[in-house]
This record gives sequence, C-alpha cells and structure tokens, in this order.
Amino acid sequence: MFKKVCIIGCGLIGSSIARGIKKNKLSNKVVSSNRSEITNKKVIKLNLVDDSSSNTKKMVKESDLIIIATPLSSYKNVIKKIKSSLKKGAIVTDVGSVKKKALTLIEKNIPKHVSWISSHPIAGTEESGPESGFADLFKNRWCILTPSNRANKNDIKSLEIFWKKMGSKVDIMNEKQHDYILSITSHMPHLIAYNIVHTTLKIKNKNKRDVIKYSAGGLRDFTRIAASNPIMWRDIFIQNRKNTSKMIDKFIDNLKDLRKAIKNKNEKKLEKIFTKTKKIRKEIVAAGQDISKPDFGRK
Amino acid sequence: MFKKVCIIGCGLIGSSIARGIKKNKLSNKVVSSNRSEITNKKVIKLNLVDDSSSNTKKMVKESDLIIIATPLSSYKNVIKKIKSSLKKGAIVTDVGSVKKKALTLIEKNIPKHVSWISSHPIAGTEESGPESGFADLFKNRWCILTPSNRANKNDIKSLEIFWKKMGSKVDIMNEKQHDYILSITSHMPHLIAYNIVHTTLKIKNKNKRDVIKYSAGGLRDFTRIAASNPIMWRDIFIQNRKNTSKMIDKFIDNLKDLRKAIKNKNEKKLEKIFTKTKKIRKEIVAAGQDISKPDFGRK
Repeated sequence: MFKKVCIIGCGLIGSSIARGIKKNKLSNKVVSSNRSEITNKKVIKLNLVDDSSSNTKKMVKESDLIIIATPLSSYKNVIKKIKSSLKKGAIVTDVGSVKKKALTLIEKNIPKHVSWISSHPIAGTEESGPESGFADLFKNRWCILTPSNRANKNDIKSLEIFWKKMGSKVDIMNEKQHDYILSITSHMPHLIAYNIVHTTLKIKNKNKRDVIKYSAGGLRDFTRIAASNPIMWRDIFIQNRKNTSKMIDKFIDNLKDLRKAIKNKNEKKLEKIFTKTKKIRKEIVAAGQDISKPDFGRK
Repeated sequence: MFKKVCIIGCGLIGSSIARGIKKNKLSNKVVSSNRSEITNKKVIKLNLVDDSSSNTKKMVKESDLIIIATPLSSYKNVIKKIKSSLKKGAIVTDVGSVKKKALTLIEKNIPKHVSWISSHPIAGTEESGPESGFADLFKNRWCILTPSNRANKNDIKSLEIFWKKMGSKVDIMNEKQHDYILSITSHMPHLIAYNIVHTTLKIKNKNKRDVIKYSAGGLRDFTRIAASNPIMWRDIFIQNRKNTSKMIDKFIDNLKDLRKAIKNKNEKKLEKIFTKTKKIRKEIVAAGQDISKPDFGRK
C-alpha cells in the first residue's frame, strides 16, 4: 500500500501500528523515530521497524505516510522538525485524542504539497511503551478521521483504507464534534477515574491496606483506568479544557443533586435515576461496543 | 455441614449461594423463600433448591442457617416475619453491603437463642435474578463477617468455615470500619458511575448515537457498573449516607481542584496527580485483587 511509513513515537499506539503494518503488509518499509536511543534500539531489536533513530528528519525522508504518535504537547516541536523533510504528496496523520488545537497548529506549519488528515483510533490499554503494543489493538474499533483544510480527497480515501486494513471501522467527523463527543465518552470518564483514585489516596494511611484489600467492590476498575499514561492524559485535559470544564460542571451539579436525594432518603428519585442508567447499557451492547456477558472480575 | 439452610431472596447472590451449597455439599437440604411465585417455581425448576415458597415462616422452620439475601430496606419486614419461627441454636446471617443499621435492627428483633452474624461477600456482577448466579461467584473473593452482640463464638467459627468452603477468604470487622471502608472501595465508585452515566443521559438526544458508538473510550466501563441492581444500590446509599456524603464532599473538592489545574494549564500538578494514581494499581495487583494483564476490551 505504501513504500515507506514513518512512525514518530513508538509507545503503545505507535508500536501497535508498526506491528499492524507488518502483519497486514501495508508498507514495504516501516521506520520510527524516538527521542530515547534505548527505545530506538529496542524497537529494532523487537523487529517492529526496519530502522529507528532520534534523527526525525532523516527517518521522515521519502516517507509516504508519517504518523505522529507522541503526546499532544510535543506536536509543535515535531512539525517544526519535520516540515522541511516531507516528501511531495506525503500524508501526515496523528493519533491524538483532541483535534481542534492540533489541526490548526499543523495546518499552519505544513507545506502545501502535503496532506494533513488527523486520525483518532479509539483503542488502547492502561499500559504504555513499545513492549505493550499488539497488532490487533485496532481490530473492530472505531477510528475517527478529521481532515484538515490541507487534505487531498484521494489521500483521505487512502488513509481510510489503511485503517480499515488495520481492522478498524472508520468514521469522518469535524474537529468540533469530535472534541465534544470524546469529552463525554472518554475524557470525562478518565478524569473521574483519576479523581476517585486521587481522593482515595488522600485518605489517611492507616486504612490504605483495607482499601486495597477490598478494592474488588468497584474501586479496582477505576484504578485500571487511572493507571493510563499521565503525560498523554495531562495533554488531553488541557487541550480539551473547554469541553471538559463544562462536563465537570454538569457532573458536579448532578452529583450534588444525588447527594441531596440520598440525604433526604428520596427512594423514588434514586430508583428512577438508577433504572434509567441501566437502560443505556443495553444500547451499548446492541451497538456492538461491549458484550452482554457479565464481568465476574478478571482471572 | 448443616441439615437445612434457608435462603431468603434468590437473586444473583442468593442463587449463587444455593448453587455453592449444592456444589460443595454444605447442607442436606436447601430451601428458599421469594415474594414472587414465579421465582419460587423457577428456582425449583432450575434445581437450585429443594423447596421454595412465599411462606417465609414455613421455609425458615428447622433451618440451621438462615441467609437474608434481599435488599436492605426489606430487613425489617423479613425479621419480623421469621423471628417466631427460628429454631433454637440457629445462625442468622445476611449478605448486605451496609452493616451498622442492619446489625442493630436485627439485634433488637432476634430471639436470644439464635446467633446473628452479618456477612458481606464482596462479589457480584452487573446482572440480577436467579438465572444469573453461579457457584464459583465467591471463589477467591473476600467475605467480611460482622458479628453482632448476639453472636455465639462457635457459630462465628461455623459461618467462617461455611464461607471458606464456598471458596471465600474471610475477615472479621466491626460495623463502623466496614461501612467506612466499603464507602471508599465500593459505594463511592458505584455512585460516581451512576452519576457519570446519568450526566451523559441528560445530554441532548441528537448526540446520543455518537455517544453510544464511541463509548469504548472509557464510558463503556462505567455503564457496566451503572447497570447494577437499582433497588439494592438505592438502599446502600441511603443506609450508608453519612460516609457516602462525606466521600462526595471530598470528591467534589478534589474535582474542583483538578478543574482549576486544567483551566490554568498547570501541567506539573496534573502530571504529579496522574503519576501517583498510577502507583496504587501496582499495589492492587500485588494484593491479588486484579491481574496485571492489560484489558484490551472484552470480546
């Protein structure tokens, strides 16, 4: 499909893309660029890429597809570093979780002979680093494309085929809608998970052992989400701060309302809310986004 | 181990206990009592119990162990109904998630010749009803015993052996500590899950399809928790309202703090918090309360 693909940042997502490209034979050559020489050596040794170096300019040269898979806060440096080395007709994409700021930033800095189309594969685990990736991470997962004003129509089609060959289902969405929907389905749930674990950690140390011991009652599932990459999530919340702040306000208002209903022993109100929330589960299962099989805790 | 066990309420937990007793041969006879005659017929047909009837008094008679597995708000009715039918030397237990109120209530109503020891098996799924139970639900899970002032020492030992034979690990804890620890590890996480799904549902309908479609980004995991039994959780929050309200207040304070850090783009603070929350995950895995294998989404 491509002659050369360059992945900038071989973490969980970047290394999974490298594995997916090799597995599905989507490029003759795959290279990567990482700041750390240890990582560059590791990804070559693991046979994830054909070449890897901290010299990003060099790695990017002659690439048909460049995938930025570093934290959002690094995009400015990355684009400045690579813009003069981009091949005519190349496609630049990323895998970031917030679109608006990144789209404008790269649009401003990218040469005219290059297509810039943002990608967001909605996939991941709580693990980080090149060892934790795997080729099927994107299988049956949604990947949202957000084309910039610097996107060639044929290139959008090519990138769509690329993700589909990785196993993804592809949707196209503008940056505003993307950042709004994702603040609901992903950013807010992560922030809440971080906050509940943070609140728990602030509790006096003498109870810490018991809290860990009995974490299977619900807290455990939140600690998994709150173990996600700290830098990546720091950047997501900051870049999507307007949507996230609005969601936080709504969340706090509703939580205060629940607190009041609990205090007043308002059985009817609580039952009504908890019955409604049960319903959406069925719709998620029906949409193929989870299975109905109950979760008895992982073994 | 026992000649006759009576389970009052054959839902997810009650029916799992019935299955566990049969599988591990812990009683010659198992009976149950359910308000609904459909359920009474069903549990006999499924071969979960030897007899079942809405006549609770009748079912309780001659039982060595009586297990109350109905919502907390029904305890008052249940104990009033059964107290005159309890055999001398019988053990009464329950499986409720809040201890303080229930302990006193039953202590006041129970005859002197009976032992009352509260149990809390920390196990469950998002499913309800007798069909959803299974014998191994309690395997490798903690079960907390909270003996009342009406507990015979030998009976505490017997109940401990009973839960251990069901596969559980057993701890003994007083009601105050139990309700405090569980408000952190279980009640608060559930309330937060209900609240995030509730907040999502309040969002305009035109985006509902997208919210469900992209729920795998984090929201999906919360909808599983928020699909738990509405009546059971309504009662838990109301009975543990003091601890829960304090936790809500702490949670809101910390969330406001996070909102401020996001608004001020305070990268250092966010990174510090998210790095700390990542650490507790390792301690939970080390304590055997989850596995380190990443969760790639259930298939």
